[in-house]
Amino acid sequence: MAPPLADQLDIVIPTIRNLDFLEQWRPFFQPYHLIIVQDGDPTKKIDVPEGFDYELHNRNDIEKLLGDKAWCISFKDSACRCFGYMISKKKYVYTIDDDCFVAKNPSGEDINALEQHIKNLLSPSTPDFFNTLYDPYAPGADFVRGYPFSMREGKLTAVSHGLWLNIPDYDAPTQMVKPMERNKRYVDAVMTIPKGTLFPMCGMNLAFDRTAIGPAMYFGLMGEGQPWGRYDDMWAGWCVKKICDHLDLGVKTGLPYIWHSKASNPFVNLRKEYKGIFWQEEIIPFFQNVTLSSENKDVFSCYLELAEKVRTGLGHLDPYFSKLADGMIAWIESWQKLNP
Amino acid sequence: MAPPLADQLDIVIPTIRNLDFLEQWRPFFQPYHLIIVQDGDPTKKIDVPEGFDYELHNRNDIEKLLGDKAWCISFKDSACRCFGYMISKKKYVYTIDDDCFVAKNPSGEDINALEQHIKNLLSPSTPDFFNTLYDPYAPGADFVRGYPFSMREGKLTAVSHGLWLNIPDYDAPTQMVKPMERNKRYVDAVMTIPKGTLFPMCGMNLAFDRTAIGPAMYFGLMGEGQPWGRYDDMWAGWCVKKICDHLDLGVKTGLPYIWHSKASNPFVNLRKEYKGIFWQEEIIPFFQNVTLSSENKDVFSCYLELAEKVRTGLGHLDPYFSKLADGMIAWIESWQKLNP
Repeated sequence: MAPPLADQLDIVIPTIRNLDFLEQWRPFFQPYHLIIVQDGDPTKKIDVPEGFDYELHNRNDIEKLLGDKAWCISFKDSACRCFGYMISKKKYVYTIDDDCFVAKNPSGEDINALEQHIKNLLSPSTPDFFNTLYDPYAPGADFVRGYPFSMREGKLTAVSHGLWLNIPDYDAPTQMVKPMERNKRYVDAVMTIPKGTLFPMCGMNLAFDRTAIGPAMYFGLMGEGQPWGRYDDMWAGWCVKKICDHLDLGVKTGLPYIWHSKASNPFVNLRKEYKGIFWQEEIIPFFQNVTLSSENKDVFSCYLELAEKVRTGLGHLDPYFSKLADGMIAWIESWQKLNP
Repeated sequence: MAPPLADQLDIVIPTIRNLDFLEQWRPFFQPYHLIIVQDGDPTKKIDVPEGFDYELHNRNDIEKLLGDKAWCISFKDSACRCFGYMISKKKYVYTIDDDCFVAKNPSGEDINALEQHIKNLLSPSTPDFFNTLYDPYAPGADFVRGYPFSMREGKLTAVSHGLWLNIPDYDAPTQMVKPMERNKRYVDAVMTIPKGTLFPMCGMNLAFDRTAIGPAMYFGLMGEGQPWGRYDDMWAGWCVKKICDHLDLGVKTGLPYIWHSKASNPFVNLRKEYKGIFWQEEIIPFFQNVTLSSENKDVFSCYLELAEKVRTGLGHLDPYFSKLADGMIAWIESWQKLNP
């Protein structure tokens, strides 16, 4: 049987090192095209295991392709991965960190994470009403008593957010307080995050429909020269969820799990997160309350509206947010240029 | 060790038959006080297995206690159970159907459903932001990166909605289409239903804090002389969730599972549900859009406001909704009389 969507999905991997982790994923990833976004020193040679179909882009390539807008792609931060979303020509993208390995389900079988993401993306979401038995489209499940029949067709799924066994995705303070905590709980569920509810989107194990929501999947300005890090995926998640809610698109979370091998250094993380820990207290209420104009019916116009609202609504926190708004605009202009 | 909350929790069981199912629950329920609400013919004698501490009320008792407001308690429908919520003197109530048995977890151990409900009720809820690793207060879990620290204290949990293995809680049409479907998926999670999201609340396996939300747990007018059935718990769920959202209270769903032994007759169910299948298409948008006055800061005033809004907002569907609004008011008046 042909692997699902092999001609319609790219795998985007940000990295600064050799991609040995791909050996473990070979049975699952080899049919797909990889877009590797090399971060940091562009003269460094990245080794990719043999047999994979890939393209590799370093900072020089980003500068060359985006010219005077290349600054909108972060440097020395895995946020650079969103460059890969922009240059993909496929309908779907899956992105994974290079310290994520194949997890096992409770029966001890390897989990084909990509296959589960594809299932999530190809079946509808149910953002308007909660189904207590989780994904109603899963085999052996359905809508429960009291679920309105008119809502059972569901909505197009734009995002599939997968989870992590072993090292959980904690912030630096939690890492410091609970250095030994491991996630051992395999929760056998996929669910739609309800309309109107924001969530912390992690970029470690994430798939999305780039034709539906790709232009909102900007990972912001992080890393070198920027005041914070580790909020790249969060930023994208807040913007994406707000726009999905506005455009009646669905966001799912839950299965599949990957095995997250190694906790990053909590002291380094604290330095990166420091400002975000304060800012998120205001940014999240901002995103909860911001409304998008009913005139904006596509992801581009919604995203540009959001950029201006970020500038006026968050500028008081730090001049950075005005620069970020410029970055959001430069990102959209670059996306439109490369995806005419 | 003393059983948790034995002096603070009543178990409410509606029934028309002998309560043999209690034998299986004996190790878990025996320390608790049972309130048995006998439905149907009051001259019929209900046998309760020996050794349980219980009070039993039949229709005559309801008439005697509530007098000219007894009509607000449904007859020939398990909606009558809410009489037990009203006469309880405890802080918490657990209600269970008499065709629900002890389920087993994936390791084959008996699930102490009540203990899990108590854990759910005694730990906070997180209605304002979604935690992707589910209940952040569970052992081995926490809030993930990007979860605002100011929200980690959570909100008081008012409701714990448990699920069902074996026979899922399907409506009559789904029962008819999928007569053989069984729920075999044990999802090891408890989650807060986000603020602003309604859900189909099932009364089969349900616990709540009656001091926090009890007066909104009215199961409506169902059964004999009423135009519908099987929407008693749904009605309560819509009202409860709306008021919990307004009062900043949390509603959880997920664990614990019970074993639901037997599907009810889908033809009988279809007759009961028939009108509800149409009505819910308008009732749910009504509840999604209705707003409660910020002046109403307690469950009584919220519920009375909701009753009037039901009368004006749903009266066009059927004159029944005006009677239901009267029932909601009679319920509150009775509650206040019995709980001065």
